Amino acid sequence: MLGKNRISTLRKLHQKKHRAEEHLFLAEGAKIVGELLRDGTLPIEVLALKSWTQKLENHNLNIELTEISEADMQRISTLVTPSEVLAVCRFPNEELLEPTEKSLILVLDSVRDPGNLGTLIRLADWFGFDAIIASMDTVEWTNPKVIQASMGSFLRLQPKYVHLSDFFLSHPGLPVIATELSGENLYTSQFKPSGCFVLSNESHGLSEELRPFIHQSLHIPAFHKSAVGAESLNVATAGAIILSEIARRRTIA
Amino acid sequence: MLGKNRISTLRKLHQKKHRAEEHLFLAEGAKIVGELLRDGTLPIEVLALKSWTQKLENHNLNIELTEISEADMQRISTLVTPSEVLAVCRFPNEELLEPTEKSLILVLDSVRDPGNLGTLIRLADWFGFDAIIASMDTVEWTNPKVIQASMGSFLRLQPKYVHLSDFFLSHPGLPVIATELSGENLYTSQFKPSGCFVLSNESHGLSEELRPFIHQSLHIPAFHKSAVGAESLNVATAGAIILSEIARRRTIA
Repeated sequence: MLGKNRISTLRKLHQKKHRAEEHLFLAEGAKIVGELLRDGTLPIEVLALKSWTQKLENHNLNIELTEISEADMQRISTLVTPSEVLAVCRFPNEELLEPTEKSLILVLDSVRDPGNLGTLIRLADWFGFDAIIASMDTVEWTNPKVIQASMGSFLRLQPKYVHLSDFFLSHPGLPVIATELSGENLYTSQFKPSGCFVLSNESHGLSEELRPFIHQSLHIPAFHKSAVGAESLNVATAGAIILSEIARRRTIA
Repeated sequence: MLGKNRISTLRKLHQKKHRAEEHLFLAEGAKIVGELLRDGTLPIEVLALKSWTQKLENHNLNIELTEISEADMQRISTLVTPSEVLAVCRFPNEELLEPTEKSLILVLDSVRDPGNLGTLIRLADWFGFDAIIASMDTVEWTNPKVIQASMGSFLRLQPKYVHLSDFFLSHPGLPVIATELSGENLYTSQFKPSGCFVLSNESHGLSEELRPFIHQSLHIPAFHKSAVGAESLNVATAGAIILSEIARRRTIA
């Protein structure tokens, strides 16, 4: 049985403040933990039910493994229905690549919903983006719901949190393309499929402070059958469409 | 105050079984209820907090309106954080259009997650699809989480639940395109942007019983930077990309 203090220490990692202080976060579920262990750089400890450790057989884990009860898993898990395994991971070294004109950079402007951020990380990984740059008010990627939604993609592509206007000021050579209702038709517009692509919070649209840095805006045209139709697409859905169109243009180029 | 019986009757509509028996469902939130009222065909009663009814001013509602307390709203709402208004709606008349070769039909093969179904309904509405045909084991669209995720789009495009193999058998002239890992590259493949487009449950892939009806398969290529990468895209994300590519081809055709 895990001691009270140990449970309390682990439960503190449910909160952003404590994750930031300890530079630790939790990842749960056999698929995600399996991927973390194969990669090996982030996990420092695994806590698992007997059902999971039994499946390990001869595989040697090079890190600490503690077998715990279902009751203890329920206490430390961030999930309503806990899985059979949970890893405590350290924050990766944050190195911001020096972007070039050919880089593919996803810029997130105030994306607050953890499910949306997780989906966008998975998409940027799928479509071979070099980096994700996020505004300081974007939800942090170590949030358990982001980890779940991104699947293992957070391992390869962690958002870097910066003041976006400072970032654009210090990289004046990069093309910057935003997505806005007033933008050009995504399908027929001429644009180069490289540089920074900005996705904004769907309720508030593009942050005013970023407007001076935008070279071009695109929008996803609607094809409603009636006068009334869906008003906007969710930021993760819009992201899927924009990132795919960039990938298509790189494919046929 | 709402009586006990009334609350119990409304709470029963949280369950699929009772929605199907009563042919009634609940929709919540000022935005969705506002759209339902403007359309006018489905809502039969509105229950709202004073904060919502005060905003009505001179607008006459042609349907029954009951002002209720926050405590009662908490009791009848399907949401963890209830909104200020809830509508009781009747099921629409189910008419299955007779599809032609030029129709755009989204076919859903065992889509179980309500958030994914809601997003797909919103996408099909945005991209002007004529119909959504769903397998009998796809989550029903009157599920409160589907209603929330689809926003108002369920008003214009309700999935029709059928045995998919029967549907394909009785419509032999329709082109049927599936999305599969083994399919042709979405970006470079030749395909006509009309007919039936099948999206499957991401864990199980295309249902075996549908295989005989598939004329062509597509897949969304991955552009991973490393040997390991995101393994698959969520069905709603894949749907966004496929539906957008269909719309793009119709735009430039």
